[in-house]
Amino acid sequence: MKDYFKHHPWHIIEEGFDPQYNKIAESVFSIGNGRMGQRANFEELYSGETLQGSYVAGVYYPDKTRVGWWKNGYPEYFAKVLNAPNWISVHLTVDNQPLDLAVCKVENFRRVLDMKTGLLSRQFIATFADGKRVKIHAQRFCSMAKGEAGAIRYAITPLNFSSAATLSLFIDADIINTDSNYDEKFWNEVYKHADEGQCVVTAETKKTFFHVCTGMRYKIYEGGKEINGSVNTELRDKFAGHVISVNLNEGAELVVYKYAAILSSENHPKDKLVENCKNLLKDLQNNGFDKLLAEHEAVWEHKWKDCDITIDGDIAAQQGIRFTIFQLTQTYTGEDERLNIGPKGFTGEKYGGSTYWDTEAYCLPFYLGTAEQKVARNLLVYRYKHLQKAIENATKLGFTDGAALYPMVTINGEECHNEWEITFEEIHRNGAIAYAIYDYIRYTDDKAYLAEYGLEVLVGISRFWAQRVNWSEDKKKFVMLGVTGPNEYENNVNNNWYTNYIATWTLRYTMEALAYVKDTDGNAYAKIISQTGFNESEIKAWQSIIEQMYFPEDRNRNVFLQQDGFLDKELIAVSAIKKNERPINQNWSWDRILRSCFIKQADVLQGLYFFEDEFDTEATKRNFDFYEPMTVHESSLSPCVHSILAAKLGYTEKAYEMYLRTARLDLDDYNNDTEDGCHITSMAGTWLSVIKGFGGMRVRDGKLQFQPFIPTQWNSYAFKIRFRNSVVRVEVDKTRVTATLDSGEPLEVIINGSGVMLR
Amino acid sequence: MKDYFKHHPWHIIEEGFDPQYNKIAESVFSIGNGRMGQRANFEELYSGETLQGSYVAGVYYPDKTRVGWWKNGYPEYFAKVLNAPNWISVHLTVDNQPLDLAVCKVENFRRVLDMKTGLLSRQFIATFADGKRVKIHAQRFCSMAKGEAGAIRYAITPLNFSSAATLSLFIDADIINTDSNYDEKFWNEVYKHADEGQCVVTAETKKTFFHVCTGMRYKIYEGGKEINGSVNTELRDKFAGHVISVNLNEGAELVVYKYAAILSSENHPKDKLVENCKNLLKDLQNNGFDKLLAEHEAVWEHKWKDCDITIDGDIAAQQGIRFTIFQLTQTYTGEDERLNIGPKGFTGEKYGGSTYWDTEAYCLPFYLGTAEQKVARNLLVYRYKHLQKAIENATKLGFTDGAALYPMVTINGEECHNEWEITFEEIHRNGAIAYAIYDYIRYTDDKAYLAEYGLEVLVGISRFWAQRVNWSEDKKKFVMLGVTGPNEYENNVNNNWYTNYIATWTLRYTMEALAYVKDTDGNAYAKIISQTGFNESEIKAWQSIIEQMYFPEDRNRNVFLQQDGFLDKELIAVSAIKKNERPINQNWSWDRILRSCFIKQADVLQGLYFFEDEFDTEATKRNFDFYEPMTVHESSLSPCVHSILAAKLGYTEKAYEMYLRTARLDLDDYNNDTEDGCHITSMAGTWLSVIKGFGGMRVRDGKLQFQPFIPTQWNSYAFKIRFRNSVVRVEVDKTRVTATLDSGEPLEVIINGSGVMLR
Repeated sequence: MKDYFKHHPWHIIEEGFDPQYNKIAESVFSIGNGRMGQRANFEELYSGETLQGSYVAGVYYPDKTRVGWWKNGYPEYFAKVLNAPNWISVHLTVDNQPLDLAVCKVENFRRVLDMKTGLLSRQFIATFADGKRVKIHAQRFCSMAKGEAGAIRYAITPLNFSSAATLSLFIDADIINTDSNYDEKFWNEVYKHADEGQCVVTAETKKTFFHVCTGMRYKIYEGGKEINGSVNTELRDKFAGHVISVNLNEGAELVVYKYAAILSSENHPKDKLVENCKNLLKDLQNNGFDKLLAEHEAVWEHKWKDCDITIDGDIAAQQGIRFTIFQLTQTYTGEDERLNIGPKGFTGEKYGGSTYWDTEAYCLPFYLGTAEQKVARNLLVYRYKHLQKAIENATKLGFTDGAALYPMVTINGEECHNEWEITFEEIHRNGAIAYAIYDYIRYTDDKAYLAEYGLEVLVGISRFWAQRVNWSEDKKKFVMLGVTGPNEYENNVNNNWYTNYIATWTLRYTMEALAYVKDTDGNAYAKIISQTGFNESEIKAWQSIIEQMYFPEDRNRNVFLQQDGFLDKELIAVSAIKKNERPINQNWSWDRILRSCFIKQADVLQGLYFFEDEFDTEATKRNFDFYEPMTVHESSLSPCVHSILAAKLGYTEKAYEMYLRTARLDLDDYNNDTEDGCHITSMAGTWLSVIKGFGGMRVRDGKLQFQPFIPTQWNSYAFKIRFRNSVVRVEVDKTRVTATLDSGEPLEVIINGSGVMLR
Repeated sequence: MKDYFKHHPWHIIEEGFDPQYNKIAESVFSIGNGRMGQRANFEELYSGETLQGSYVAGVYYPDKTRVGWWKNGYPEYFAKVLNAPNWISVHLTVDNQPLDLAVCKVENFRRVLDMKTGLLSRQFIATFADGKRVKIHAQRFCSMAKGEAGAIRYAITPLNFSSAATLSLFIDADIINTDSNYDEKFWNEVYKHADEGQCVVTAETKKTFFHVCTGMRYKIYEGGKEINGSVNTELRDKFAGHVISVNLNEGAELVVYKYAAILSSENHPKDKLVENCKNLLKDLQNNGFDKLLAEHEAVWEHKWKDCDITIDGDIAAQQGIRFTIFQLTQTYTGEDERLNIGPKGFTGEKYGGSTYWDTEAYCLPFYLGTAEQKVARNLLVYRYKHLQKAIENATKLGFTDGAALYPMVTINGEECHNEWEITFEEIHRNGAIAYAIYDYIRYTDDKAYLAEYGLEVLVGISRFWAQRVNWSEDKKKFVMLGVTGPNEYENNVNNNWYTNYIATWTLRYTMEALAYVKDTDGNAYAKIISQTGFNESEIKAWQSIIEQMYFPEDRNRNVFLQQDGFLDKELIAVSAIKKNERPINQNWSWDRILRSCFIKQADVLQGLYFFEDEFDTEATKRNFDFYEPMTVHESSLSPCVHSILAAKLGYTEKAYEMYLRTARLDLDDYNNDTEDGCHITSMAGTWLSVIKGFGGMRVRDGKLQFQPFIPTQWNSYAFKIRFRNSVVRVEVDKTRVTATLDSGEPLEVIINGSGVMLR
């Protein structure tokens, strides 16, 4: 379904209503503000195919795990961010005919998401069965200025009739999760109330007992004059609403303003929720829609100022990269260290809204380069706060003495995933969490982070690695058995090169970090030593592992081997797979995939990307040339790494090809799965492809470097990047690279190897 | 819970009623007749902990699979033998007080299973709340003479009162399966009817539409005189019964005879089921309980005559081995090639009553040695009938050209298992099916089986192996990647020695079989060639694999290696595991188990057991000495192989120790899981330990050989073994081995290397 949405530099546009694409559009047009977000469901009743979705960050439910065959160590629960109470509905009924786009004839339908302002709007003309025609113009936003507020302007113009009508405005907490393992409902009612112009429902999650208080107020105007129709209050289980009788007058626009407040017990005492909600509602109504929108737009303007990327000569690419920045920015604002980034953000339920290694390996650089330092920092603090749970997790698996294994999938620090080859074996995630600390400090120079939080995490992770390896009498080396690398098309392998590498790297970095804190902050060091029970003799064991770790390699080809035994496979290029058998994960049995040489996602190359300065370009080239032809890129996280490495190696066409694999993944529903939600975390890969790939951005020796090239398909492109206390703008066209200081302090950057002072 | 059941050479005895052991006793006292069977549930109402279970062979339901994470190639359904309509109930109520052993005071409780006759009986005195005391003597059996018939004699003696009472006798098809993935009920009602003294219910399984017609007739006597109480008919959904008012007279025994007929549409046209059921019921009642029991006992007498094992000096061992023979014999009678042996037989629901490789690898030799030839033959024919499904199964996984992969778990030939490392990878089962053909022919000399059925199966399996290996450019050998051996504590390994071995062995044997059929039966050969589309060039490819197959080995120790990389593990003896961490599968996380060297079940040793004549004793000894210390035997199928090899190597204490691991597994509830049912298939391992281990029985060059030893704990033992047209009795005491011809044709046997002619 390429090209369903119109190309436009700043807008996502759907013209004409096609119910079969509605769930895809609901995903793509999603809006959020870091605290909450929602799919672009209709305000009016819709009896067609829809995935209703509204989410409140941090409010989750531990759903009982579903397993085929239980394995010791599996978690009993899968914590998932819940579909939360619905506050968007504005149901219109005219002469007993509900306005329902699955039933009415729909014309002039146009849905627009303005990425510049974060405003979702929709216009259409609907014809009821009796021929009455009504024009609707709906606008709504989740306020970036007030994280607990949403507002809707819903304008109704009867085109060929005057008639009495009813409007039903409500809060509905009787919500189902599509992603429920046992078809349970997850909410109980705690409180509900409806009085004049206002409804409030407090719902409580089962088991976790989060309270979410959702309220609404409304005003109705015609010709600028407030209307007061007769009102019936409707109170049902987990539901509070008003049914308002109004008169629609031919040609006259009736405007409903609905203000919503969504407060959770994560941010308010439970006994104050209703009061605070009502106060906020009063405040929202006093401000009014236009003022709230202006505030909201101002935040977006501020955000875009420092992070926009422009592409000249390719509107589709321009739209794609802005969609990436828009979605990542509205998903995570970094204001709350308890939050993180789910694979689908606020655009769907799939993967439970939980945190994966995507955050550290892909998203962190985006936030480092586009937002204030605290945004990225809070992603790190999130893991720090889960350190005890990671230690418990490792203990449950048989590790001891403070070894920490961070979960594959989590919300509150507890492991949620139950697939043994992933849960117990895809442990490279632990390395990515260590790497993120390094990456953050390299970028920000915030070395104090080590003493405050980072070192404890590094010690826990290093202890895990030290216990996870074992001495092979046969190889006279340390080995790491039974792991799954980033390439999940191999399971339970021995000596995954990437995992072995990141493990020893972590040990090295932890030793450096220990030394740094010891040298610079003796008190903090003493405290950490005491808290972790760290014994300096541990360093000796780590040193021994670092020196004697085994790394599989092919000495003939002079490449690193993904794992032991890789050369026993038939090594075939992806191009040999029949077209109708791609993607192989939809066409081949699992065992055929496992036995093949085909790679889901960069594995050795992921290591060469993370640790590029530890390898020369020739080594990178040999490995890229060996592995790229066997990589099917069936993870949306894969192409960006290949794009960046290809750019570095001068394979510019390959770099652009790989960039295209994710650039419009959701906008063009490339994988036929956008209806479940957008691929939020892999969007960061698109951004990385442009900035680190095309732009060649690196931080070395505390300096920002660029080595840009321009894809032949573009005329020029420009990006802004925030680095420490400066925002740099880089423009690249066919002949030139220009770097300027957009704002902040002067700094020296390196362009194509030469230092340039920007002032 | 050792020693809950009393030791006795022929009886299983429970004295005193302990509700906490009731589910274990229900398993152990199970009765069956090959066509049907049931747990030893009480006839009277029981409100305590019970696992109601009654099973009709071959009647299954494809329950929707439950998976955590779907993998391509997984089956959608898990076919399971269903808990079937209940025909045993005889509910007694005295003055509105139901006789319920969970409520009444129970004294003098004694439950006895007479293994010689297959009669289950139970006696007790129960005291109602009002002080009334009643003595019960219940007896029942599933007729070995009439496979569709069961009979109950239920005798009630009021000890201290005379009173009116009611008896409720019914057929109840409103049955649940505990092992239901989504808590569904699996039966619909098709027909029910109750008239004088008779009730019939026909129930139909959902999806598979099997009909099971279950009927009952009853007679009630007091002092030898038939009683006709007033009768109320009770008809409910899937339920038909009579409630009979009777008078109980102090001291007078009231006897209820309940005759049951259980007919399935597997053996009758659906439209004749009710008629045939009613006819059978009439016939049963005309015969009467005593005559039916006598017929039943006669069959058991006949069966025991040729297969008993006696052990002098160890009643517990005597009871254990007879329990083994009794259970295996009542589970599978070999009269119906559509049937096979579920891991729990008729004693529980677990594992769905489905067929595993246990049948070929463990059970087949038992039936070869204890029953007529057709019994074992029908186990082979069962697989032949599933050949097309095995080809479909392989095709689904990407194999071509008639390659057959038999399922890991099946009832009707379709794969039911969904755990990728087992379903797709534990493919050695395919080899066991080939080996069973060889084993059967070696034992019976029925070479004609090859042309009739065996060769087609062998060709399909060999084609699978030929496609499942691949050429390793690195090793310049054929390798087999991504398999799980019998030792399921390693998953997804490369070059599992056992699997590689049985694969090449299958290719060799198939080539021999092809040559044999070609030489001896040209017409049959031509037909098979045409049906399978076999091309003689395939043989060339097989030959190449046989010659160039890779087998991992440790050249220093001169042992075969379980798989590639095994020597990277820390090789530790089981004795080093802390006692409170055993069994490791209940105490260690799955990844810890996988990374350890500990072996669940014989793996290399399984190969040395199957193919012992291809290895010298020294090689067997080296491998045994290497692997035995690392084997935890956490599969009940493991110890017997070690016992047999230990016996061969002269490790007699080890052989006895291993024998003890399974000898009373269920009688002493060794693994705390007998409540789910008995370990029927692994009972065959106990028998093998005695016959092939202690008795040293082999068939070589068409001759039966024995090389017995006697465990020091025993005075003497003797066994009978059926071989071709003879039954041989072997007696072993501290000083002598005596072989005699028990019945049948004279034959030469080899005792400790010397030929002896038995007449």
